[in-house]
Amino acid sequence: MPKTKKKSVCIVGSGNWGSAIAKIVGKNAARLPNFEDRVTMYVYEEMINGKKLTEIINETHENVKYLPGHKLPENVVAVPDVCEAAKDADILIFVVPHQFIRTLCSTLLGKIKPTAIALSLIKGFDQKEGGGIELISHIITRTLKIQCAVLMGANLAGEVADEKFCETTIGCRDSHLAPILRDIIQTDYFRVVVVDDEDAVEICGALKNIVACGAGFVDGMSLGDNTKAAVIRLGLMEMIKFVDVFYPGCKLSTFFESCGVADLITTCYGGRNRKVSEAFVKTGKSIAELEGDMLNGQKLQGPITAEEVNYMLKSKGMEDKFPLFTAIHDICVGKLTAQQLIDCIKNHPEHMLEKSERKAKL
Amino acid sequence: MPKTKKKSVCIVGSGNWGSAIAKIVGKNAARLPNFEDRVTMYVYEEMINGKKLTEIINETHENVKYLPGHKLPENVVAVPDVCEAAKDADILIFVVPHQFIRTLCSTLLGKIKPTAIALSLIKGFDQKEGGGIELISHIITRTLKIQCAVLMGANLAGEVADEKFCETTIGCRDSHLAPILRDIIQTDYFRVVVVDDEDAVEICGALKNIVACGAGFVDGMSLGDNTKAAVIRLGLMEMIKFVDVFYPGCKLSTFFESCGVADLITTCYGGRNRKVSEAFVKTGKSIAELEGDMLNGQKLQGPITAEEVNYMLKSKGMEDKFPLFTAIHDICVGKLTAQQLIDCIKNHPEHMLEKSERKAKL
Repeated sequence: MPKTKKKSVCIVGSGNWGSAIAKIVGKNAARLPNFEDRVTMYVYEEMINGKKLTEIINETHENVKYLPGHKLPENVVAVPDVCEAAKDADILIFVVPHQFIRTLCSTLLGKIKPTAIALSLIKGFDQKEGGGIELISHIITRTLKIQCAVLMGANLAGEVADEKFCETTIGCRDSHLAPILRDIIQTDYFRVVVVDDEDAVEICGALKNIVACGAGFVDGMSLGDNTKAAVIRLGLMEMIKFVDVFYPGCKLSTFFESCGVADLITTCYGGRNRKVSEAFVKTGKSIAELEGDMLNGQKLQGPITAEEVNYMLKSKGMEDKFPLFTAIHDICVGKLTAQQLIDCIKNHPEHMLEKSERKAKL
Repeated sequence: MPKTKKKSVCIVGSGNWGSAIAKIVGKNAARLPNFEDRVTMYVYEEMINGKKLTEIINETHENVKYLPGHKLPENVVAVPDVCEAAKDADILIFVVPHQFIRTLCSTLLGKIKPTAIALSLIKGFDQKEGGGIELISHIITRTLKIQCAVLMGANLAGEVADEKFCETTIGCRDSHLAPILRDIIQTDYFRVVVVDDEDAVEICGALKNIVACGAGFVDGMSLGDNTKAAVIRLGLMEMIKFVDVFYPGCKLSTFFESCGVADLITTCYGGRNRKVSEAFVKTGKSIAELEGDMLNGQKLQGPITAEEVNYMLKSKGMEDKFPLFTAIHDICVGKLTAQQLIDCIKNHPEHMLEKSERKAKL
C-alpha cells in the first residue's frame, strides 16, 4: 500500500454489521487527512417497494432494509457492482455472510489494486474441501494474494450503530498497517485494541458460538449460575487449547481481549445460539425445527461450527481432550441428550492437571 | 502436619457458605481413609425458638437458620466454643464474615496444633491499621503462625448445597498440601483446580465486587450488552494490573480459573453488588440508603473494597492507571455521577498501549 497518498476505503458488504461499521468508517474517512473522503460500499442490489436499495441509500443515506433508523455519512456511496466498488480501494473491509466469501473473492480476483490490504469482519470458519476448516482471512489472502487483518469483539451491530460505548479487537500481524487500521475504525465510543495474533482473534469469533450452545443447554436445564460460569470457563479453556493445538504460537493474553472473554460473555448471555439451545432443551424439538420456528429457516452457527471442529478433533484423535466441544456436538446431532452434558465434563482435563504439568503448559 | 496419621478437620464458621462446604467436607472425611470421620464445625451460638442452634444441628443435622432444607452429614458436629472445635484440628477451614477474623485469630492463638494448616474461604480484604489492605490469609498466617491456603470461585452457596455442578480454585503454594486440600474439598459435582498463586486467587475474590458495581451502573443506565462486556473486561484487566503492581509475580493464567473470569461473570450478572448498583442509578438513592432498603442495613462489599483499593492507588499516585476502579469509587461516594462512568474509561490505558509496550507487558 503506497504510504504517501491518501488511502481509499471500500466496505464489501452492507448488512446490519456492514452498515453499522460504514457509519464509523465514513465519519473517520471524512475527518482524517490520510484517507479519501469517498468510501464505497458494495450493496447487493435488491428492490425495496419498487426502488433499488443502492438508490435509496445514496439518496436518503439510510440502509432502510438492514439498518433502518440510522443515517450513514453522506460520503459513503452505495455501489451495486463489487468490482466497481473495490477497484480503487487501498483498504477492503469484508463484512458479508461467510458462505459468500469464496465467490466474492473469485469475482474480485485481478480487479483490485495489487497493493490493497483487507480487514475481515466475518465471523465463522469455512469448510475446507476434504474436511477441516479454513479461516476466512486465509481464504482472502490465498485467493486475492493480499494481506488480511481481522476485527472481532463484543460488538452487537445495533448497539454499535446506537454509538453505545464498546471495545473491539483488531488482529494484525503487520505493525505498519496496525495504526492505519486503528485510525479508520476507532472512535471515542468504539475503542480498538490491536494485537498481532490474527488467527487467535478470528478463531475466537467462531468458537464462542459452540460455547454459547453449551450455555444455552445449561439455561434450558435451569442448572444455575455456578454451572453456567463453569461451562463458559471450560469453553474458554477449550478455545485456548484449540488455538494452541491447531494454530500454535498465539498468546494467552489475546483471550483477555474483547474478541475473547468479552465477546464470549455477551454471546453466552444474549445471542441466538444461546437462545435456540435453551429452547432445544425446553421444547425437545430438533435444532433444524427450531431454526424454522425461531430463525426463519436460517442456519444456527454454533452447531455448524461444532461439527467442523469435531471433524478436526476426530481426525487427530483428540475428542477426549475437548470434552465440552465434543459433548455439545453430540447433543446437537442427537447422539447425547442435553442432560448428559455435565457427565461429559465432570472429569475435564482441566480438573486433572497436576501442578507441574500446569506450570509447563502455561 | 504429621503425614502418617489421619487428618482431623474443623470448619470455623457455619453460615450459608460454611454449611454448604460442611456438607462436602463431612462426606469426604467419612469416605476417605486419610481423614478422621468426625468433623467439627464452630457454630456461633444462637437461640432458635428457645433452643440452642448447636443442639438443633447435632440432633437434626440441619442448620435451620443458615442452610434450611439441607441435611449435613452426621459426622459433622456443631461446637459452640471455637477453641474446643479447633483444638485437635490438622486442617482449619475458615469461613466467617471477614470482620470477625482478627478477633477469632486472637481467641485461637496458642489453642491450636502448631502443625495445623488453614484454608480460608473468606472473601474481601481487611483494612490495615494506617490504611491499605491486608489479605485475610495473611492475617491468619501472621497471627496464628500457620500456613494458609485459600479457596475461591463461582460458588453461590445455595447452588453448591443443591449439588449443582461447579468449579472452584484452591490457591496453595505448598505442593505437598495441595493434594490433601483437594481431596477434602473435591466431589464429582464440585471440581477443584489447584494453583500456586495464593495471593492472586484471594484478591480476585475481593476485586470482582468493585467490577460488579460498574456492571450494575451499566445495567442501571441500560447501556446494553457491548458496554457491559467492555466494563467487565476492563475490570478484569484492572484486577490483573492491581495484582501485578501490589502482589507481583502472579501468573496470567490464574485469572482464567474459576476464581477469576468465572466468578467475575457470575458476580456481574447475578449478585447483590450488581443489583444494588443498578438500583443506585435507577432510584437516585445513596448506597447507604439502598443498604437499608435492600440489604437490611448490611454493608455492600463492592463500595468498601473500592474505597480500600482507592486508598492504595492514591498513595502510589496510580489512580489514572486504574480509571475504572477509580471512577466506581468516585461514583459510590458521590464525587461523580454514574453517567460520567463511560467518559472515565474512554481513554483507558488498555486502549492506549502500543504493540511494543503490550508485548513487553505480557
